[in-house]
Amino acid sequence: MADYKAPLRDMQFVLNEVFAAEKLWADMPGTQEVSSDLMQAILEEGAKICENLLYPLNRSGDEQGCTINNGEVSTPEGFKQAYQQFAEGGWIGLGGSPEYGGQGLPKMLTVMFEEMLFAANTSFTLYPVLCSGACLAILKHASETLKQQYLPKMYAGEWAGTMCLTEPHSGTDLGLLRTKATPNTDNSFNITGTKIFITGGEHDLTNNIIHLVLAKLPDAPSGSRGISLFLVPKFLINEDGSLGERNNATCGSIEHKMGIKGSATCVMNFDGAKGWLVGAPNKGLTAMFTMMNYERLSIGIQGQGTMDMGYQHALAYAKERLQGRSPLGPQAPNQSADPIIVHPDVQRMLLTIKAFSEAGRALAAYTGMQLDIAKFHEDATVKAKAERQVMFLTPIAKAFLTDRGLECAVLAQQVFGGHGYIREWSVEQLVRDVRIAQIYEGTNGIQAMDLVARKLCKAGLQIIEPFMEDAKSVIAQSHNQTELTPLAQALTSALEEFKVVSQTIVDRTQTDPLEAGSVAVEYLEFAGLVICGFVWLKMALVASQCLAEEKNDFYESKLKTAQFFYQKLLPKTEYLAKSLAAGSEPLATTRPEHF
Amino acid sequence: MADYKAPLRDMQFVLNEVFAAEKLWADMPGTQEVSSDLMQAILEEGAKICENLLYPLNRSGDEQGCTINNGEVSTPEGFKQAYQQFAEGGWIGLGGSPEYGGQGLPKMLTVMFEEMLFAANTSFTLYPVLCSGACLAILKHASETLKQQYLPKMYAGEWAGTMCLTEPHSGTDLGLLRTKATPNTDNSFNITGTKIFITGGEHDLTNNIIHLVLAKLPDAPSGSRGISLFLVPKFLINEDGSLGERNNATCGSIEHKMGIKGSATCVMNFDGAKGWLVGAPNKGLTAMFTMMNYERLSIGIQGQGTMDMGYQHALAYAKERLQGRSPLGPQAPNQSADPIIVHPDVQRMLLTIKAFSEAGRALAAYTGMQLDIAKFHEDATVKAKAERQVMFLTPIAKAFLTDRGLECAVLAQQVFGGHGYIREWSVEQLVRDVRIAQIYEGTNGIQAMDLVARKLCKAGLQIIEPFMEDAKSVIAQSHNQTELTPLAQALTSALEEFKVVSQTIVDRTQTDPLEAGSVAVEYLEFAGLVICGFVWLKMALVASQCLAEEKNDFYESKLKTAQFFYQKLLPKTEYLAKSLAAGSEPLATTRPEHF
Repeated sequence: MADYKAPLRDMQFVLNEVFAAEKLWADMPGTQEVSSDLMQAILEEGAKICENLLYPLNRSGDEQGCTINNGEVSTPEGFKQAYQQFAEGGWIGLGGSPEYGGQGLPKMLTVMFEEMLFAANTSFTLYPVLCSGACLAILKHASETLKQQYLPKMYAGEWAGTMCLTEPHSGTDLGLLRTKATPNTDNSFNITGTKIFITGGEHDLTNNIIHLVLAKLPDAPSGSRGISLFLVPKFLINEDGSLGERNNATCGSIEHKMGIKGSATCVMNFDGAKGWLVGAPNKGLTAMFTMMNYERLSIGIQGQGTMDMGYQHALAYAKERLQGRSPLGPQAPNQSADPIIVHPDVQRMLLTIKAFSEAGRALAAYTGMQLDIAKFHEDATVKAKAERQVMFLTPIAKAFLTDRGLECAVLAQQVFGGHGYIREWSVEQLVRDVRIAQIYEGTNGIQAMDLVARKLCKAGLQIIEPFMEDAKSVIAQSHNQTELTPLAQALTSALEEFKVVSQTIVDRTQTDPLEAGSVAVEYLEFAGLVICGFVWLKMALVASQCLAEEKNDFYESKLKTAQFFYQKLLPKTEYLAKSLAAGSEPLATTRPEHF
Repeated sequence: MADYKAPLRDMQFVLNEVFAAEKLWADMPGTQEVSSDLMQAILEEGAKICENLLYPLNRSGDEQGCTINNGEVSTPEGFKQAYQQFAEGGWIGLGGSPEYGGQGLPKMLTVMFEEMLFAANTSFTLYPVLCSGACLAILKHASETLKQQYLPKMYAGEWAGTMCLTEPHSGTDLGLLRTKATPNTDNSFNITGTKIFITGGEHDLTNNIIHLVLAKLPDAPSGSRGISLFLVPKFLINEDGSLGERNNATCGSIEHKMGIKGSATCVMNFDGAKGWLVGAPNKGLTAMFTMMNYERLSIGIQGQGTMDMGYQHALAYAKERLQGRSPLGPQAPNQSADPIIVHPDVQRMLLTIKAFSEAGRALAAYTGMQLDIAKFHEDATVKAKAERQVMFLTPIAKAFLTDRGLECAVLAQQVFGGHGYIREWSVEQLVRDVRIAQIYEGTNGIQAMDLVARKLCKAGLQIIEPFMEDAKSVIAQSHNQTELTPLAQALTSALEEFKVVSQTIVDRTQTDPLEAGSVAVEYLEFAGLVICGFVWLKMALVASQCLAEEKNDFYESKLKTAQFFYQKLLPKTEYLAKSLAAGSEPLATTRPEHF
């Protein structure tokens, strides 16, 4: 079992060399203070926390899981102390608003830290990530009073945060929810209802937990237009900021799950619990989506962090395990057998993980960059373009990276042979832990429908245009590097095909209500592959330019992996294009009796 | 959580309508007594056992797992009683030789029963399946004395069997193994060494366990040519057949695994344990492969049974869970929402599972049929053709069906949304249990190398010819059914492409030692898809002929699923063809420093 090592060199490559982060930050007020040195220092400190504090609790956390006793939830041994140390280091407020005690760092930087967190210990990471999301919703939508009361303590990690959406009969279809909010005379509300699947709904890490709860006001319109968002603390806050009375928000039970066992997944009972409105009445979904969109990128990063951890495990094992001989003859003639990394099929598995993991990191940075531009940039046109990119990239980052997360965790496990199935080796935990990422924060099918039905089909091809421009610009820049010609040509074709399938879907949905749902998942995968093609060409371009100056393993590795991606993985778009072309027809004529 | 229902109608369809089993059995001595009525009676009785005895122990078996205390292994509650009932029903000797108390039923029939077993309870099923495999190796290679001593008790389920290959440092590379066999004067041997990953190495189901152990004789040539096979009972057998002294074959520990927790995976210590040679000295691998090939098809059926169970779970949930509305407008206007089966993406997931599961059943039957012909047929040419088919189909059945098994279990889980991640719903267990099937009995990468390096590249295209003939014959028979024309055309193209890629690989391996390993996994998947295309056209042909007479949901469903397979799943061969075309190039230039 390999130890986790944060891929700092790779992160620096993506931020500085591929996306010129320092220059971008210098150009925008709000990020000007983030120098390359500061960036490096933060990543190095973050790496220490992940490697030395969180990773060592990963497997024990899985084995122990969470327990509940009389409504009190205990997290695995070591989580509480680690959380305190983590909070004291200021890591929870890293991206938070400086006005309320956050550190205001750009998203493009914090995504790198999130990758390390998820790679090292997914279960642990869900607690602070949920808290950051809750902070964001409060910051954007809550009253000044609530912000001052809650944000500093939450950024400081003294209090945690949750997101309470799902009810037993209401998951994807939030319009069905039944939790009720009745107004009190003092501006507060009484919240009553049951929520399920609440990550960190109850735990022993902090002395207060701030729930953001979706509920319906008495006069609310039916369906999803009648949902409001409420802030419901576990303990009410006295005027002096100290903790007051226990609120009627209690944990009924915790779920027995396939994985993320160190993360408490709670059934939460709100029984006239006191809460305060966040945002306008009946506009709760908008407020919740602020949080959801943030979480969706984070969950995509869970997929990506898993890929990197899987790669580290599998690579270490492939170098160590002696079995058989290279088809080229013994490579380690003094040993009884060669390490299994000499076998082409093992290399194929490793390179597949590497190609998706490194593309995933770049995709996360690219998405983070758009979020930063949308937030900090002064030019309205640039901002608007970045906002469109965020709309386009968010569902793809979530679904594509978590689908690849599972795929690559399974590949990493496969490299181990039988040992990969044994818990002690830790790689099977990656498979179990990452599996939830394809489901929560909106299933990957829902992400695909968000991309196709809500975005592509509403906004038309303009939703993909900023990305297409960026991609074409890299193709243009690659013209001088002959070794990149096959890659640039393949990307050009894939982009053309992507435009064609996008237009076909837009056209067909005009008359065919089944089209979007029939093709959404495959379209999203197509988009994800094309974006990987873009970032791989961009990375290969940097590598190729550096290699022109001097031989270097790091850049050679980038170039080789890019070539591998283009030869072995990008061609899947051709299959997807063909399958997409069938539209809704393979499903439309199917009747219930056929199942 | 759905109950398991054995798909008897589908099994009958495959056996009788698609592959005309009764006619085949009537034509061969050795199977002449198997009438359609007998077949039906056996499957119905088998279904009862699986539905009522084994399925109810599936989830409790997973929760409890196996335990070890002082070298004694306890299986989960209920397993022992169930095993006794199972053995008394004669189910273990179903395919065994009548000469020693087996029932001699054709493989084509027993694969259907194995599917039910794996669908209902994989952990339980591994015990009898390993025993049947051990019986086969004994039957084919052991002395008459050993056969008479052991087979009747094993067929009767009084004694169990195992297969002891792997050692800590020696898995795929059996040439490295260190277990030693030293001859005694009484024709027996003393076996000393440690074996790991021994399924059912120790348990409380039977009063004796018969281990088949690979070990090296003192004068053995090095590597895999110096391996012999020994029969090592847990308890020695007295001359009167009663149990004698405890042998020095003991369980050191059991593994903590991702799944199949009800199956005891043991570390076995042989400390001068008494054993008897099975087959010729140094020819142990050949004898072991008799068992391995048998197990490989069985493990493929594990994948297929998992798909069917996943489908049953997901279908029941999709019909029950109310969430959202159909894109065509409310389908259940009196309810708060429509069942999720109305959503095209849910239908896509269900049909994908259905298409692979039903093709998998037909592939298993097709493979079983070849085994029966090879065993029972009187015409040497027909026999030889069937033997080639077995060589070709076995690695594909194992790897393709277990890869699809994981894929479809994950899809079934996805249909459940968040509930799919919760243990109580049972579908996450399918994912964990089936994952091992891609690894054990030779990883799927090894299956692919067996297909490409040992078979395709040694025998050339003649290894695929019998299959190609069968496929072309179905295409020819489809000419009259116009609705099948697109399918027949697509299969014709896929077969041509398959021949091209096969020839390319054969040619390239002449000069490129890296070719086979670089493309094997993708080639096997290509082959699997083309075989599915063949069986789907065959099934669609039957359905289409029946529908010409009268409307019928069952046959309509077959036709629709065939069309879905051809439109959405078979086109993946185009991607695989492109990726295969790259040969070893994407890997060959990669150096260790690039990882």
